[in-house]
Amino acid sequence: MNQSQVYLDERIRIAAEAFQFLKSTTIAQRAAFMHAVATEIEGLGPELLETAHAETALPLPRLTGEKARTVGQWRSYANAVAMGIYTEARIDLANTETGKSDIRKFNLGIGPVVVFGASNFPYAFSTAGGDTASAIGAGCPVIVKGHSGHSQTSTIMADAIATVIKEFGWPEGVFSHILGAHIEGTDTKIGAYLTAHPLVKAVGFTGSYWGGKALFDIANQREEPIPVFAEMGSINPVFAFTHLLTDRAEDLAKEYAASLTLGVGQFCTNPGVFIAVKGDALERFKKALASAIATIAPGTMLNEGIYEHFEKNKITLSSQHAVAVIAESSVESTRGQGRPRIIRTSASNFLKNQVLSEEVFGPFAVLVEAENDDEVLAIAQQLKGQLTITIAGTKEDVQEHLDVFNVVKDKAGRILFNGMPTGVEVVYAMQHGGPFPSCTDPRFTSVGPDAVKRFVRPLSFQNWPDEFLPEELKNENPLGIARIVDGAVVTKTSI
Amino acid sequence: MNQSQVYLDERIRIAAEAFQFLKSTTIAQRAAFMHAVATEIEGLGPELLETAHAETALPLPRLTGEKARTVGQWRSYANAVAMGIYTEARIDLANTETGKSDIRKFNLGIGPVVVFGASNFPYAFSTAGGDTASAIGAGCPVIVKGHSGHSQTSTIMADAIATVIKEFGWPEGVFSHILGAHIEGTDTKIGAYLTAHPLVKAVGFTGSYWGGKALFDIANQREEPIPVFAEMGSINPVFAFTHLLTDRAEDLAKEYAASLTLGVGQFCTNPGVFIAVKGDALERFKKALASAIATIAPGTMLNEGIYEHFEKNKITLSSQHAVAVIAESSVESTRGQGRPRIIRTSASNFLKNQVLSEEVFGPFAVLVEAENDDEVLAIAQQLKGQLTITIAGTKEDVQEHLDVFNVVKDKAGRILFNGMPTGVEVVYAMQHGGPFPSCTDPRFTSVGPDAVKRFVRPLSFQNWPDEFLPEELKNENPLGIARIVDGAVVTKTSI
Repeated sequence: MNQSQVYLDERIRIAAEAFQFLKSTTIAQRAAFMHAVATEIEGLGPELLETAHAETALPLPRLTGEKARTVGQWRSYANAVAMGIYTEARIDLANTETGKSDIRKFNLGIGPVVVFGASNFPYAFSTAGGDTASAIGAGCPVIVKGHSGHSQTSTIMADAIATVIKEFGWPEGVFSHILGAHIEGTDTKIGAYLTAHPLVKAVGFTGSYWGGKALFDIANQREEPIPVFAEMGSINPVFAFTHLLTDRAEDLAKEYAASLTLGVGQFCTNPGVFIAVKGDALERFKKALASAIATIAPGTMLNEGIYEHFEKNKITLSSQHAVAVIAESSVESTRGQGRPRIIRTSASNFLKNQVLSEEVFGPFAVLVEAENDDEVLAIAQQLKGQLTITIAGTKEDVQEHLDVFNVVKDKAGRILFNGMPTGVEVVYAMQHGGPFPSCTDPRFTSVGPDAVKRFVRPLSFQNWPDEFLPEELKNENPLGIARIVDGAVVTKTSI
Repeated sequence: MNQSQVYLDERIRIAAEAFQFLKSTTIAQRAAFMHAVATEIEGLGPELLETAHAETALPLPRLTGEKARTVGQWRSYANAVAMGIYTEARIDLANTETGKSDIRKFNLGIGPVVVFGASNFPYAFSTAGGDTASAIGAGCPVIVKGHSGHSQTSTIMADAIATVIKEFGWPEGVFSHILGAHIEGTDTKIGAYLTAHPLVKAVGFTGSYWGGKALFDIANQREEPIPVFAEMGSINPVFAFTHLLTDRAEDLAKEYAASLTLGVGQFCTNPGVFIAVKGDALERFKKALASAIATIAPGTMLNEGIYEHFEKNKITLSSQHAVAVIAESSVESTRGQGRPRIIRTSASNFLKNQVLSEEVFGPFAVLVEAENDDEVLAIAQQLKGQLTITIAGTKEDVQEHLDVFNVVKDKAGRILFNGMPTGVEVVYAMQHGGPFPSCTDPRFTSVGPDAVKRFVRPLSFQNWPDEFLPEELKNENPLGIARIVDGAVVTKTSI
């Protein structure tokens, strides 16, 4: 065993120890901790913004917004945890006449969780992001493999969490931050080692399909398989229909161009495919789109690797058979900046050539022109799982295309009626996670308080005296949470 | 493609079609269907009992009880579905000032589910058992691979469901029943083919570790991995402590002997390991246990294969190093009947020899004698995942062994304070599913209304007009279900 493994083993060992501590905490205690982390992050000075800006090239206003989002995530997840939503407490009382036992169930944390952050959200989907907040809310210690693209930002966030751990007198192992600098080995090897470790019980990941799928496979080939929540790629198709296109082709083109190029197109909900039936309205849309895209300045991408991938993939898709560039930014740029581009192809070509359905991470889209409604439906049916699918239409359009509406329900985690998919609100009703390959487990979301659910499992107690039950299940209901008692929802009261 | 594949493909195709129909049903409609199935099964005449008795050798009183349990499952799951518990409706209203979208989420079925029933519960865990009821409750069509051990019973149950499908005018594909007689190929091959089929979206299984793990691996190696809910083996350890043993060694021995031999030991919650520290109290327990077991008559096992496995495994464990038979039934028997036996070994030997932790399906147990508390704790720590773990103790015992109490929380789905683990009540608070290898997915239960949760996934609707939303999410709340609206639980009211 080399030094790196010794180091990783020690971090995992103290996480497993800390899990025993977290098992003894109540939802109220964990919520208090999460609120304290939110306040700690909120109080971080300009250094946090400047560091992330230097590391990721993301503009300061965007980072300011993302910081607020991150703070909001900790707070809203804390409130949800305190409400007991993820406790899912159920109590079935004993019946001395029938001999029925007293059975009580609640959800507890599953154990140490390894988190791999995303390059494109250095705060909200990284070290102190949603995966970390939801795992701690569930009662699970977290081991973050800090993203190499923003390791200093990651360290500042890790220090903030460590400060709160000290303040609360919690064990150090509740949160560990691992950087490549700590250890030898590539990111891939470190990720594989952490995922394969017997004491690790779940993995949260945001990134590429290949990265997520590799972790998923390792996790399922362990002696004890564990869940991997990998949020991977998506092309987020937009289906546009005739009535709407006729009414507002020009406005839609502007909205679409803005969404596609927002943050230099570096969002997992970037709307990378646009599908519509040929016609005058679509011609108007294309013309307006070309004008809009032409004037949008290329922005600096997150890092050199992402820029190079973007260039390579853009060229690959653009050089497919029966494809033409129909819109491109004509604003000057320097190396490292992603130049927005849109290509067009026919529906029949899109259906035949799978390469055209590959995600291009950046400001790039494929506009698919269908001959008729049947081709549009065929595209919907052939789609792989997506984070989002948008229907740009009037109510009349939807009525005329209920078949498409029905099919997309099986293909995405979130379906939109107009609007654009970028912008993933942190609310209960958010589903950020669609069918494979957009995610490895579409039954869970990685955004919104429901993200906490990923890291719990139920445990039943049969015939235990009140004194040994967790607070969540005691007769008096000291935490005042909603519980299902003998089949009916009972709120805030004792039994 | 051979004839069998054509047949299976056709059943799966009509299931996928029926899924589109089920997507359009509300929870109220599915609950009504489930109540009708319950009534249909309830009305089945003596033929059902006699057929199952002939096929499984299970006694008529047991089968009568299991039939009632099966009917009760359909009813209680139906009530839970109608309450909207698995809908998990969340609504976050639009805010025109902040530009926040209207987002609404609910759970819908994941698609066609393949169910493999268990040999030991021809009604409750088979064709019309809990997996089928919960999948239909979730809105998923079901394809049952009927168990070859009770294919006629399976056919009667399948016919009952088909009758209700006709009565309701639902598509035939909502439920399919496949028997080996319909097709060529071994059970293993048929199972593999169904699990690998792209239109199948989940698998429910109750049976052996090898069977469940094989399906799990196939499902994870698909192009689109799917969840497999396999409830597999378990040795359901009982930890007995000194105060209780001293108080009631003889009574505990009788209870343990009865639980171990109930149904000829053919329960997945059969308490196959008993752990205690050496001493006078344990000697009294052993003596009483030997007397109790000696007089328990061997019962006819489910089938020849299970009997042969039992005999083989019993001999394998009994012939391990440092093991002795300490109790055995002395009642006469014929071939095919499982003779109860208990062996003893030391804790140090049990910790060293993994063979002694293998499940023996039948009336067989290993009594483990520890030198001290440390050895007991070491056994708890070394345990693999279990469906249940029982602590036989007084409150004082638990206080003195909080370390063991804490460890077992991570090792089982259900922990009992006294009583015996056989008898899995169909209630909300039941957790029938422990950490791997007792189950492939310990985050879900296969018994109790919460079993429905296995077959749904969330879908978010963003900015959709009320007319296109499912009933569960409409403003008026026509189904009168509890929903989380803007972060607060709102019951039965419109928005």
